Amino acid sequence: MKHNGSGGAEVRNLRVMMAYRGTAYHGFQRQGNAYTVQQAVEEALSGLLGEEVTIYGCSRTDAGVHARQFCFNFRTENPIPTRGIVFGTNARLGDDIALLSCEEAEEDFHARYCCKGKEYEYIVHNSEIKDPFYCDRAYRCPHPIDAVLLDREAKAFVGEHDFKSFCSADCDKENTTRTIYSCGVKREGDLVRFRVAGNGFLYNMVRIMVGTLLSINEGKLPQGSVPQLLLSRDRTLAGRTVPPQGLYLDRVFYKRSDSIE
Amino acid sequence: MKHNGSGGAEVRNLRVMMAYRGTAYHGFQRQGNAYTVQQAVEEALSGLLGEEVTIYGCSRTDAGVHARQFCFNFRTENPIPTRGIVFGTNARLGDDIALLSCEEAEEDFHARYCCKGKEYEYIVHNSEIKDPFYCDRAYRCPHPIDAVLLDREAKAFVGEHDFKSFCSADCDKENTTRTIYSCGVKREGDLVRFRVAGNGFLYNMVRIMVGTLLSINEGKLPQGSVPQLLLSRDRTLAGRTVPPQGLYLDRVFYKRSDSIE
Repeated sequence: MKHNGSGGAEVRNLRVMMAYRGTAYHGFQRQGNAYTVQQAVEEALSGLLGEEVTIYGCSRTDAGVHARQFCFNFRTENPIPTRGIVFGTNARLGDDIALLSCEEAEEDFHARYCCKGKEYEYIVHNSEIKDPFYCDRAYRCPHPIDAVLLDREAKAFVGEHDFKSFCSADCDKENTTRTIYSCGVKREGDLVRFRVAGNGFLYNMVRIMVGTLLSINEGKLPQGSVPQLLLSRDRTLAGRTVPPQGLYLDRVFYKRSDSIE
Repeated sequence: MKHNGSGGAEVRNLRVMMAYRGTAYHGFQRQGNAYTVQQAVEEALSGLLGEEVTIYGCSRTDAGVHARQFCFNFRTENPIPTRGIVFGTNARLGDDIALLSCEEAEEDFHARYCCKGKEYEYIVHNSEIKDPFYCDRAYRCPHPIDAVLLDREAKAFVGEHDFKSFCSADCDKENTTRTIYSCGVKREGDLVRFRVAGNGFLYNMVRIMVGTLLSINEGKLPQGSVPQLLLSRDRTLAGRTVPPQGLYLDRVFYKRSDSIE
Protein backbone atom coordinates (compact mmCIF):
# COMPACT_ATOMS: atom_id res chain seq x y z
CA MET A 1 0.00 0.00 0.00
CA LYS A 2 1.07 3.59 -0.45
CA HIS A 3 -0.37 6.99 0.31
CA ASN A 4 -1.53 9.03 -2.60
CA GLY A 5 -0.14 12.49 -3.16
CA SER A 6 -3.13 14.62 -2.26
CA GLY A 7 -4.28 13.32 1.11
CA GLY A 8 -4.04 10.69 3.77
CA ALA A 9 -5.90 7.83 2.09
CA GLU A 10 -3.99 4.68 1.24
CA VAL A 11 -4.08 3.39 -2.32
CA ARG A 12 -4.76 -0.34 -2.11
CA ASN A 13 -3.91 -2.74 -4.94
CA LEU A 14 -6.35 -5.64 -4.74
CA ARG A 15 -6.01 -9.06 -6.33
CA VAL A 16 -9.33 -10.75 -7.15
CA MET A 17 -10.16 -14.24 -8.42
CA MET A 18 -13.44 -14.63 -10.26
CA ALA A 19 -15.37 -17.18 -12.31
CA TYR A 20 -17.78 -16.52 -15.15
CA ARG A 21 -19.96 -18.22 -17.69
CA GLY A 22 -19.08 -16.42 -20.92
CA THR A 23 -22.25 -17.21 -22.90
CA ALA A 24 -23.82 -13.77 -22.60
CA TYR A 25 -20.63 -11.71 -22.99
CA HIS A 26 -18.43 -10.58 -25.87
CA GLY A 27 -15.36 -11.81 -24.04
CA PHE A 28 -13.53 -10.27 -21.12
CA GLN A 29 -11.99 -7.14 -22.60
CA ARG A 30 -13.93 -3.86 -22.62
CA GLN A 31 -15.18 -2.90 -26.09
CA GLY A 32 -16.94 0.17 -27.40
CA ASN A 33 -19.96 -1.55 -28.87
CA ALA A 34 -20.57 -4.82 -27.01
CA TYR A 35 -21.17 -5.90 -23.42
CA THR A 36 -18.16 -7.60 -21.86
CA VAL A 37 -17.22 -9.18 -18.54
CA GLN A 38 -14.83 -6.29 -17.81
CA GLN A 39 -17.63 -3.75 -18.22
CA ALA A 40 -20.01 -5.75 -16.01
CA VAL A 41 -17.42 -6.10 -13.24
CA GLU A 42 -16.24 -2.49 -13.45
CA GLU A 43 -19.83 -1.26 -13.20
CA ALA A 44 -20.50 -3.46 -10.16
CA LEU A 45 -17.27 -2.43 -8.41
CA SER A 46 -17.75 1.26 -9.25
CA GLY A 47 -21.29 1.10 -7.84
CA LEU A 48 -20.10 -0.57 -4.67
CA LEU A 49 -17.09 1.68 -4.08
CA GLY A 50 -18.61 4.93 -5.26
CA GLU A 51 -15.72 5.71 -7.61
CA GLU A 52 -14.61 4.90 -11.16
CA VAL A 53 -12.82 1.55 -11.10
CA THR A 54 -10.59 0.11 -13.83
CA ILE A 55 -9.67 -3.57 -13.61
CA TYR A 56 -6.65 -5.28 -15.17
CA GLY A 57 -7.34 -8.84 -16.27
CA CYS A 58 -4.90 -11.75 -16.54
CA SER A 59 -5.99 -12.51 -20.08
CA ARG A 60 -8.41 -11.71 -22.83
CA THR A 61 -11.01 -14.36 -23.38
CA ASP A 62 -13.15 -14.59 -26.52
CA ALA A 63 -16.92 -14.22 -26.73
CA GLY A 64 -18.60 -17.30 -25.26
CA VAL A 65 -15.47 -18.61 -23.49
CA HIS A 66 -15.81 -19.43 -19.77
CA ALA A 67 -13.47 -19.01 -16.81
CA ARG A 68 -13.38 -21.10 -13.66
CA GLN A 69 -10.51 -18.98 -12.35
CA PHE A 70 -9.70 -15.56 -13.76
CA CYS A 71 -7.48 -13.07 -11.94
CA PHE A 72 -7.69 -9.29 -12.09
CA ASN A 73 -6.33 -6.43 -10.00
CA PHE A 74 -7.59 -2.92 -9.37
CA ARG A 75 -6.73 0.07 -7.20
CA THR A 76 -8.95 1.85 -4.72
CA GLU A 77 -8.68 4.18 -1.74
CA ASN A 78 -11.90 2.81 -0.26
CA PRO A 79 -11.10 1.05 3.06
CA ILE A 80 -13.90 -1.55 2.69
CA PRO A 81 -12.78 -5.02 3.90
CA THR A 82 -11.88 -7.54 1.16
CA ARG A 83 -14.77 -9.82 2.23
CA GLY A 84 -17.15 -6.89 1.72
CA ILE A 85 -15.81 -6.42 -1.80
CA VAL A 86 -16.53 -10.08 -2.66
CA PHE A 87 -20.06 -10.14 -1.23
CA GLY A 88 -20.99 -6.58 -2.20
CA THR A 89 -19.84 -7.00 -5.80
CA ASN A 90 -21.47 -10.41 -6.18
CA ALA A 91 -24.79 -8.95 -5.08
CA ARG A 92 -24.50 -6.37 -7.89
CA LEU A 93 -23.52 -8.88 -10.59
CA GLY A 94 -25.75 -11.25 -12.55
CA ASP A 95 -25.77 -14.96 -11.82
CA ASP A 96 -23.13 -15.66 -14.46
CA ILE A 97 -20.19 -13.81 -12.86
CA ALA A 98 -18.90 -14.36 -9.31
CA LEU A 99 -15.95 -12.98 -7.40
CA LEU A 100 -14.40 -15.93 -5.54
CA SER A 101 -11.82 -14.15 -3.38
CA CYS A 102 -10.12 -10.80 -2.87
CA GLU A 103 -6.84 -10.03 -1.14
CA GLU A 104 -4.41 -7.15 -0.67
CA ALA A 105 -1.60 -7.36 -3.24
CA GLU A 106 1.86 -5.83 -3.52
CA GLU A 107 1.93 -2.35 -5.01
CA ASP A 108 3.43 -3.62 -8.26
CA PHE A 109 1.22 -6.70 -8.72
CA HIS A 110 -0.40 -6.76 -12.17
CA ALA A 111 -2.72 -9.65 -13.06
CA ARG A 112 -1.45 -9.83 -16.64
CA TYR A 113 2.26 -9.05 -16.40
CA CYS A 114 2.86 -11.11 -13.26
CA CYS A 115 1.05 -14.19 -14.62
CA LYS A 116 3.44 -17.15 -14.90
CA GLY A 117 1.12 -19.50 -16.73
CA LYS A 118 -2.42 -20.72 -17.38
CA GLU A 119 -4.26 -23.96 -17.72
CA TYR A 120 -7.22 -24.38 -20.07
CA GLU A 121 -9.77 -27.14 -20.44
CA TYR A 122 -11.76 -27.74 -23.61
CA ILE A 123 -14.82 -29.98 -23.26
CA VAL A 124 -16.20 -31.95 -26.18
CA HIS A 125 -19.58 -33.65 -25.79
CA ASN A 126 -19.07 -36.69 -27.98
CA SER A 127 -22.59 -37.72 -28.94
CA GLU A 128 -24.94 -37.91 -31.89
CA ILE A 129 -27.71 -36.57 -29.66
CA LYS A 130 -27.60 -33.13 -28.07
CA ASP A 131 -27.75 -32.76 -24.30
CA PRO A 132 -29.68 -29.75 -22.94
CA PHE A 133 -27.28 -29.54 -19.99
CA TYR A 134 -24.13 -29.19 -22.14
CA CYS A 135 -25.32 -27.04 -25.05
CA ASP A 136 -23.61 -23.80 -23.95
CA ARG A 137 -20.84 -25.53 -21.97
CA ALA A 138 -19.31 -27.99 -24.40
CA TYR A 139 -18.83 -28.45 -28.15
CA ARG A 140 -20.87 -31.35 -29.46
CA CYS A 141 -19.03 -33.61 -31.84
CA PRO A 142 -20.96 -36.62 -33.21
CA HIS A 143 -17.90 -38.37 -34.75
CA PRO A 144 -16.58 -41.07 -32.31
CA ILE A 145 -13.42 -39.78 -30.61
CA ASP A 146 -10.47 -42.03 -29.77
CA ALA A 147 -9.27 -40.23 -26.63
CA VAL A 148 -6.33 -42.61 -26.14
CA LEU A 149 -5.03 -41.81 -29.63
CA LEU A 150 -5.52 -38.07 -29.15
CA ASP A 151 -3.83 -38.12 -25.75
CA ARG A 152 -0.75 -39.62 -27.46
CA GLU A 153 -0.91 -37.06 -30.30
CA ALA A 154 -1.32 -34.20 -27.79
CA LYS A 155 2.07 -34.94 -26.21
CA ALA A 156 3.75 -33.46 -29.32
CA PHE A 157 2.62 -29.99 -28.15
CA VAL A 158 4.61 -30.23 -24.89
CA GLY A 159 7.80 -28.14 -24.73
CA GLU A 160 8.91 -24.87 -26.28
CA HIS A 161 7.64 -24.40 -29.82
CA ASP A 162 6.77 -21.70 -32.30
CA PHE A 163 2.95 -21.77 -32.39
CA LYS A 164 2.59 -19.60 -35.52
CA SER A 165 0.53 -22.40 -37.18
CA PHE A 166 -1.75 -22.48 -34.13
CA CYS A 167 -2.86 -18.88 -33.85
CA SER A 168 -5.48 -16.90 -35.66
CA ALA A 169 -4.33 -15.03 -38.78
CA ASP A 170 -5.43 -11.88 -36.86
CA CYS A 171 -2.77 -12.51 -34.24
CA ASP A 172 -0.46 -9.48 -34.09
CA LYS A 173 2.20 -10.95 -31.76
CA GLU A 174 5.73 -10.87 -33.16
CA ASN A 175 7.01 -13.60 -30.89
CA THR A 176 4.85 -16.69 -31.34
CA THR A 177 7.04 -19.03 -29.28
CA ARG A 178 5.36 -20.46 -26.18
CA THR A 179 6.15 -23.24 -23.72
CA ILE A 180 3.52 -25.92 -23.06
CA TYR A 181 3.96 -27.66 -19.69
CA SER A 182 1.37 -30.38 -20.20
CA CYS A 183 -1.26 -31.39 -22.73
CA GLY A 184 -3.57 -34.37 -22.47
CA VAL A 185 -6.92 -35.82 -23.50
CA LYS A 186 -9.21 -37.93 -21.31
CA ARG A 187 -12.64 -39.47 -21.78
CA GLU A 188 -15.28 -39.40 -19.01
CA GLY A 189 -18.44 -41.02 -20.36
CA ASP A 190 -19.76 -38.86 -23.23
CA LEU A 191 -17.33 -36.04 -22.40
CA VAL A 192 -13.83 -35.78 -23.84
CA ARG A 193 -11.67 -33.35 -21.87
CA PHE A 194 -8.63 -31.67 -23.45
CA ARG A 195 -6.33 -30.01 -20.88
CA VAL A 196 -3.34 -27.82 -21.67
CA ALA A 197 -1.09 -25.76 -19.41
CA GLY A 198 1.59 -23.35 -20.58
CA ASN A 199 3.40 -20.09 -19.96
CA GLY A 200 1.25 -18.19 -22.43
CA PHE A 201 -1.25 -18.66 -25.24
CA LEU A 202 -1.78 -16.91 -28.57
CA TYR A 203 -5.12 -15.78 -29.98
CA ASN A 204 -7.33 -18.89 -30.58
CA MET A 205 -4.35 -21.16 -29.84
CA VAL A 206 -6.14 -23.70 -27.64
CA ARG A 207 -9.14 -23.85 -29.97
CA ILE A 208 -6.87 -24.54 -32.99
CA MET A 209 -4.88 -27.15 -31.04
CA VAL A 210 -8.13 -28.98 -30.19
CA GLY A 211 -9.43 -28.57 -33.75
CA THR A 212 -6.21 -30.07 -35.08
CA LEU A 213 -6.46 -33.07 -32.76
CA LEU A 214 -10.08 -33.58 -33.87
CA SER A 215 -8.95 -33.41 -37.52
CA ILE A 216 -6.43 -36.16 -36.76
CA ASN A 217 -9.23 -38.18 -35.10
CA GLU A 218 -11.41 -37.73 -38.19
CA GLY A 219 -8.59 -38.79 -40.55
CA LYS A 220 -8.37 -35.33 -42.18
CA LEU A 221 -4.81 -34.95 -40.92
CA PRO A 222 -2.37 -37.87 -40.54
CA GLN A 223 -1.41 -39.27 -37.13
CA GLY A 224 1.93 -37.91 -35.98
CA SER A 225 1.56 -34.68 -37.95
CA VAL A 226 1.71 -32.18 -35.06
CA PRO A 227 5.56 -31.76 -35.08
CA GLN A 228 5.48 -30.96 -38.80
CA LEU A 229 2.55 -28.56 -38.41
CA LEU A 230 4.52 -26.71 -35.70
CA LEU A 231 7.58 -26.44 -37.97
CA SER A 232 5.55 -25.24 -40.96
CA ARG A 233 4.54 -21.93 -39.26
CA ASP A 234 1.47 -21.96 -41.54
CA ARG A 235 -2.01 -21.53 -40.04
CA THR A 236 -3.68 -22.94 -43.16
CA LEU A 237 -2.12 -26.38 -42.63
CA ALA A 238 -3.48 -26.91 -39.06
CA GLY A 239 -7.05 -27.95 -38.19
CA ARG A 240 -10.18 -25.87 -37.70
CA THR A 241 -10.85 -23.44 -34.84
CA VAL A 242 -13.41 -25.20 -32.63
CA PRO A 243 -16.20 -23.02 -31.19
CA PRO A 244 -15.84 -21.04 -27.94
CA GLN A 245 -18.50 -22.67 -25.72
CA GLY A 246 -16.28 -25.67 -24.89
CA LEU A 247 -13.35 -23.57 -23.63
CA TYR A 248 -12.63 -22.86 -19.95
CA LEU A 249 -9.78 -20.85 -18.48
CA ASP A 250 -9.31 -23.25 -15.60
CA ARG A 251 -6.36 -21.99 -13.57
CA VAL A 252 -3.92 -19.06 -13.55
CA PHE A 253 -0.47 -19.45 -11.99
CA TYR A 254 1.43 -16.64 -10.26
CA LYS A 255 3.95 -18.48 -8.14
CA ARG A 256 6.12 -21.46 -8.90
CA SER A 257 4.06 -23.42 -6.36
CA ASP A 258 0.84 -22.76 -8.31
CA SER A 259 2.27 -24.49 -11.32
CA ILE A 260 1.57 -28.09 -12.16
CA GLU A 261 5.15 -28.77 -13.32
CA MET B 1 -50.26 -50.58 -34.24
CA LYS B 2 -53.72 -50.54 -35.71
CA HIS B 3 -55.35 -49.26 -38.82
CA ASN B 4 -57.57 -46.25 -38.48
CA GLY B 5 -61.14 -46.43 -39.65
CA SER B 6 -60.98 -44.24 -42.72
CA GLY B 7 -58.07 -45.58 -44.75
CA GLY B 8 -55.07 -47.84 -44.95
CA ALA B 9 -52.64 -45.88 -42.75
CA GLU B 10 -51.48 -47.43 -39.51
CA VAL B 11 -51.87 -45.45 -36.31
CA ARG B 12 -48.55 -45.71 -34.48
CA ASN B 13 -48.23 -45.10 -30.75
CA LEU B 14 -44.70 -43.84 -30.10
CA ARG B 15 -42.84 -43.76 -26.80
CA VAL B 16 -40.24 -40.99 -26.54
CA MET B 17 -37.63 -40.22 -23.91
CA MET B 18 -36.44 -36.64 -23.67
CA ALA B 19 -34.35 -34.35 -21.48
CA TYR B 20 -34.82 -30.65 -20.86
CA ARG B 21 -33.45 -27.73 -18.95
CA GLY B 22 -36.55 -26.15 -17.44
CA THR B 23 -35.18 -22.63 -16.85
CA ALA B 24 -36.99 -20.96 -19.73
CA TYR B 25 -40.28 -22.85 -19.46
CA HIS B 26 -43.38 -22.63 -17.28
CA GLY B 27 -43.18 -26.33 -16.58
CA PHE B 28 -44.11 -29.25 -18.81
CA GLN B 29 -47.88 -29.01 -19.06
CA ARG B 30 -49.48 -26.88 -21.79
CA GLN B 31 -51.02 -23.66 -20.46
CA GLY B 32 -53.07 -20.98 -22.13
CA ASN B 33 -50.86 -18.04 -21.26
CA ALA B 34 -47.29 -19.25 -20.80
CA TYR B 35 -44.71 -21.13 -22.88
CA THR B 36 -44.24 -24.72 -21.74
CA VAL B 37 -42.13 -27.74 -22.72
CA GLN B 38 -45.25 -29.51 -24.01
CA GLN B 39 -46.03 -26.63 -26.36
CA ALA B 40 -42.44 -26.46 -27.65
CA VAL B 41 -42.34 -30.21 -28.33
CA GLU B 42 -45.80 -30.34 -29.88
CA GLU B 43 -44.92 -27.48 -32.21
CA ALA B 44 -41.66 -29.18 -33.26
CA LEU B 45 -43.35 -32.56 -33.82
CA SER B 46 -46.30 -31.00 -35.65
CA GLY B 47 -43.91 -29.13 -37.93
CA LEU B 48 -41.92 -32.27 -38.66
CA LEU B 49 -44.90 -34.56 -39.22
CA GLY B 50 -47.15 -32.08 -40.97
CA GLU B 51 -50.10 -32.78 -38.68
CA GLU B 52 -51.44 -31.66 -35.29
CA VAL B 53 -49.67 -33.69 -32.60
CA THR B 54 -50.72 -34.05 -28.95
CA ILE B 55 -48.21 -35.56 -26.53
CA TYR B 56 -48.98 -37.28 -23.21
CA GLY B 57 -46.32 -36.72 -20.57
CA CYS B 58 -45.35 -38.99 -17.67
CA SER B 59 -45.63 -36.15 -15.20
CA ARG B 60 -46.17 -32.46 -14.72
CA THR B 61 -43.06 -30.58 -13.77
CA ASP B 62 -43.08 -27.07 -12.31
CA ALA B 63 -41.61 -23.95 -13.88
CA GLY B 64 -37.81 -24.08 -13.72
CA VAL B 65 -37.62 -27.81 -12.90
CA HIS B 66 -35.35 -29.93 -15.14
CA ALA B 67 -35.64 -33.45 -16.52
CA ARG B 68 -32.81 -35.79 -17.42
CA GLN B 69 -35.33 -38.44 -18.45
CA PHE B 70 -38.93 -37.61 -19.21
CA CYS B 71 -41.23 -39.98 -21.09
CA PHE B 72 -44.13 -39.06 -23.34
CA ASN B 73 -46.18 -40.84 -25.97
CA PHE B 74 -48.06 -39.61 -29.02
CA ARG B 75 -49.93 -41.06 -31.97
CA THR B 76 -49.25 -40.48 -35.65
CA GLU B 77 -50.02 -42.06 -39.01
CA ASN B 78 -46.79 -40.70 -40.49
CA PRO B 79 -44.50 -43.65 -41.42
CA ILE B 80 -41.26 -41.70 -40.70
CA PRO B 81 -38.62 -43.94 -39.00
CA THR B 82 -38.19 -43.43 -35.24
CA ARG B 83 -34.60 -42.24 -35.77
CA GLY B 84 -35.91 -39.55 -38.12
CA ILE B 85 -38.32 -38.39 -35.41
CA VAL B 86 -35.47 -37.97 -32.91
CA PHE B 87 -33.14 -36.08 -35.25
CA GLY B 88 -35.84 -34.14 -37.09
CA THR B 89 -37.51 -32.95 -33.89
CA ASN B 90 -34.21 -32.06 -32.22
CA ALA B 91 -33.29 -29.88 -35.17
CA ARG B 92 -36.55 -27.95 -34.67
CA LEU B 93 -36.15 -27.54 -30.89
CA GLY B 94 -34.00 -25.06 -28.98
CA ASP B 95 -30.80 -26.15 -27.26
CA ASP B 96 -32.61 -26.74 -23.97
CA ILE B 97 -34.83 -29.66 -25.03
CA ALA B 98 -33.63 -32.90 -26.65
CA LEU B 99 -35.37 -36.10 -27.65
CA LEU B 100 -33.10 -38.95 -26.56
CA SER B 101 -34.88 -41.94 -28.09
CA CYS B 102 -38.11 -42.96 -29.79
CA GLU B 103 -39.62 -46.42 -30.17
CA GLU B 104 -42.85 -48.08 -31.25
CA ALA B 105 -45.07 -48.78 -28.24
CA GLU B 106 -48.06 -51.03 -27.61
CA GLU B 107 -51.39 -49.56 -28.63
CA ASP B 108 -52.43 -48.99 -25.02
CA PHE B 109 -49.15 -47.54 -23.72
CA HIS B 110 -49.69 -44.22 -21.93
CA ALA B 111 -46.66 -42.40 -20.48
CA ARG B 112 -48.58 -41.27 -17.38
CA TYR B 113 -50.87 -44.16 -16.55
CA CYS B 114 -48.30 -46.88 -17.26
CA CYS B 115 -45.57 -45.23 -15.20
CA LYS B 116 -44.52 -47.47 -12.28
CA GLY B 117 -42.29 -44.97 -10.51
CA LYS B 118 -39.91 -42.04 -10.73
CA GLU B 119 -36.62 -40.97 -9.27
CA TYR B 120 -35.79 -37.33 -8.56
CA GLU B 121 -32.55 -35.62 -7.66
CA TYR B 122 -32.37 -32.27 -5.87
CA ILE B 123 -29.01 -30.50 -5.98
CA VAL B 124 -27.96 -28.01 -3.31
CA HIS B 125 -24.84 -25.93 -3.89
CA ASN B 126 -23.59 -25.57 -0.33
CA SER B 127 -21.46 -22.44 -0.45
CA GLU B 128 -21.31 -18.86 0.77
CA ILE B 129 -20.11 -17.82 -2.68
CA LYS B 130 -22.22 -18.24 -5.79
CA ASP B 131 -20.95 -20.33 -8.69
CA PRO B 132 -21.82 -19.10 -12.20
CA PHE B 133 -21.98 -22.70 -13.44
CA TYR B 134 -24.63 -23.79 -10.91
CA CYS B 135 -26.88 -20.72 -10.66
CA ASP B 136 -29.81 -22.12 -12.68
CA ARG B 137 -29.03 -25.77 -11.93
CA ALA B 138 -28.83 -25.95 -8.16
CA TYR B 139 -30.20 -24.15 -5.09
CA ARG B 140 -27.46 -22.31 -3.23
CA CYS B 141 -27.53 -22.71 0.51
CA PRO B 142 -24.80 -20.94 2.53
CA HIS B 143 -25.54 -22.71 5.86
CA PRO B 144 -23.12 -25.69 6.28
CA ILE B 145 -24.96 -28.95 5.57
CA ASP B 146 -24.32 -32.17 7.50
CA ALA B 147 -25.06 -34.66 4.72
CA VAL B 148 -24.45 -37.68 6.97
CA LEU B 149 -27.10 -36.45 9.44
CA LEU B 150 -29.59 -35.68 6.65
CA ASP B 151 -29.02 -39.05 4.99
CA ARG B 152 -30.01 -40.69 8.28
CA GLU B 153 -33.05 -38.40 8.66
CA ALA B 154 -34.10 -39.07 5.04
CA LYS B 155 -34.53 -42.79 5.72
CA ALA B 156 -37.73 -41.97 7.66
CA PHE B 157 -39.43 -41.17 4.34
CA VAL B 158 -38.90 -44.72 3.00
CA GLY B 159 -41.99 -46.93 2.90
CA GLU B 160 -45.70 -46.30 2.43
CA HIS B 161 -46.86 -43.08 4.10
CA ASP B 162 -49.54 -40.43 3.85
CA PHE B 163 -47.67 -37.40 2.45
CA LYS B 164 -50.43 -34.85 3.17
CA SER B 165 -47.92 -32.75 5.18
CA PHE B 166 -45.53 -32.82 2.22
CA CYS B 167 -47.67 -31.48 -0.57
CA SER B 168 -48.65 -27.99 -1.55
CA ALA B 169 -51.91 -26.68 -0.08
CA ASP B 170 -53.04 -26.42 -3.75
CA CYS B 171 -52.82 -30.19 -4.13
CA ASP B 172 -56.23 -31.55 -5.14
CA LYS B 173 -55.44 -35.26 -4.81
CA GLU B 174 -57.79 -37.18 -2.50
CA ASN B 175 -55.40 -40.01 -1.91
CA THR B 176 -52.12 -38.62 -0.57
CA THR B 177 -50.55 -41.98 0.27
CA ARG B 178 -47.39 -42.79 -1.70
CA THR B 179 -44.61 -45.37 -1.43
CA ILE B 180 -41.00 -44.20 -1.30
CA TYR B 181 -38.51 -46.87 -2.42
CA SER B 182 -35.35 -45.04 -1.46
CA CYS B 183 -34.29 -41.65 -0.13
CA GLY B 184 -30.74 -40.52 0.55
CA VAL B 185 -28.40 -37.55 0.83
CA LYS B 186 -24.77 -37.49 -0.35
CA ARG B 187 -22.11 -34.80 -0.45
CA GLU B 188 -19.78 -34.40 -3.45
CA GLY B 189 -17.52 -31.42 -2.78
CA ASP B 190 -19.69 -28.28 -2.61
CA LEU B 191 -22.73 -30.15 -3.92
CA VAL B 192 -25.20 -31.97 -1.70
CA ARG B 193 -27.36 -34.40 -3.68
CA PHE B 194 -30.78 -35.51 -2.40
CA ARG B 195 -32.16 -38.54 -4.26
CA VAL B 196 -35.62 -40.00 -3.85
CA ALA B 197 -37.42 -42.77 -5.76
CA GLY B 198 -41.06 -43.69 -5.34
CA ASN B 199 -44.23 -44.92 -7.00
CA GLY B 200 -45.65 -41.41 -7.29
CA PHE B 201 -45.20 -37.86 -6.05
CA LEU B 202 -47.63 -35.14 -5.01
CA TYR B 203 -47.44 -31.48 -6.02
CA ASN B 204 -44.19 -29.96 -4.61
CA MET B 205 -43.59 -33.13 -2.57
CA VAL B 206 -39.86 -33.50 -3.27
CA ARG B 207 -39.21 -29.79 -2.74
CA ILE B 208 -40.97 -29.88 0.64
CA MET B 209 -39.14 -33.07 1.66
CA VAL B 210 -35.79 -31.38 0.87
CA GLY B 211 -36.90 -28.15 2.59
CA THR B 212 -37.83 -30.13 5.69
CA LEU B 213 -34.44 -31.88 5.78
CA LEU B 214 -32.73 -28.47 5.42
CA SER B 215 -34.86 -27.14 8.31
CA ILE B 216 -33.64 -30.06 10.44
CA ASN B 217 -30.05 -29.24 9.39
CA GLU B 218 -30.57 -25.61 10.41
CA GLY B 219 -32.06 -26.58 13.79
CA LYS B 220 -35.49 -25.15 12.92
CA LEU B 221 -37.02 -28.61 13.24
CA PRO B 222 -35.77 -31.27 15.67
CA GLN B 223 -33.81 -34.31 14.53
CA GLY B 224 -36.04 -37.38 14.24
CA SER B 225 -39.16 -35.30 13.51
CA VAL B 226 -40.02 -36.72 10.07
CA PRO B 227 -42.22 -39.61 11.34
CA GLN B 228 -44.30 -37.19 13.42
CA LEU B 229 -44.58 -34.71 10.54
CA LEU B 230 -45.90 -37.51 8.33
CA LEU B 231 -48.51 -38.51 10.95
CA SER B 232 -49.65 -34.90 11.50
CA ARG B 233 -51.04 -34.56 7.93
CA ASP B 234 -50.46 -30.80 8.32
CA ARG B 235 -48.49 -28.91 5.63
CA THR B 236 -47.83 -25.99 7.99
CA LEU B 237 -45.69 -28.15 10.30
CA ALA B 238 -43.20 -29.32 7.62
CA GLY B 239 -40.32 -27.24 6.22
CA ARG B 240 -40.21 -24.72 3.40
CA THR B 241 -40.63 -25.47 -0.31
CA VAL B 242 -37.15 -25.13 -1.79
CA PRO B 243 -36.90 -23.41 -5.21
CA PRO B 244 -37.33 -25.27 -8.51
CA GLN B 245 -33.89 -24.82 -10.12
CA GLY B 246 -32.30 -27.61 -8.01
CA LEU B 247 -34.85 -30.26 -9.00
CA TYR B 248 -34.29 -32.91 -11.70
CA LEU B 249 -36.66 -35.65 -12.78
CA ASP B 250 -33.88 -38.19 -13.16
CA ARG B 251 -35.50 -41.48 -14.16
CA VAL B 252 -38.93 -42.87 -14.97
CA PHE B 253 -39.69 -46.56 -14.46
CA TYR B 254 -42.10 -48.58 -16.60
CA LYS B 255 -41.03 -52.15 -15.98
CA ARG B 256 -40.08 -53.96 -12.83
CA SER B 257 -36.54 -54.19 -14.25
CA ASP B 258 -36.28 -50.37 -14.53
CA SER B 259 -36.85 -50.01 -10.82
CA ILE B 260 -34.06 -49.60 -8.32
CA GLU B 261 -35.77 -51.82 -5.71
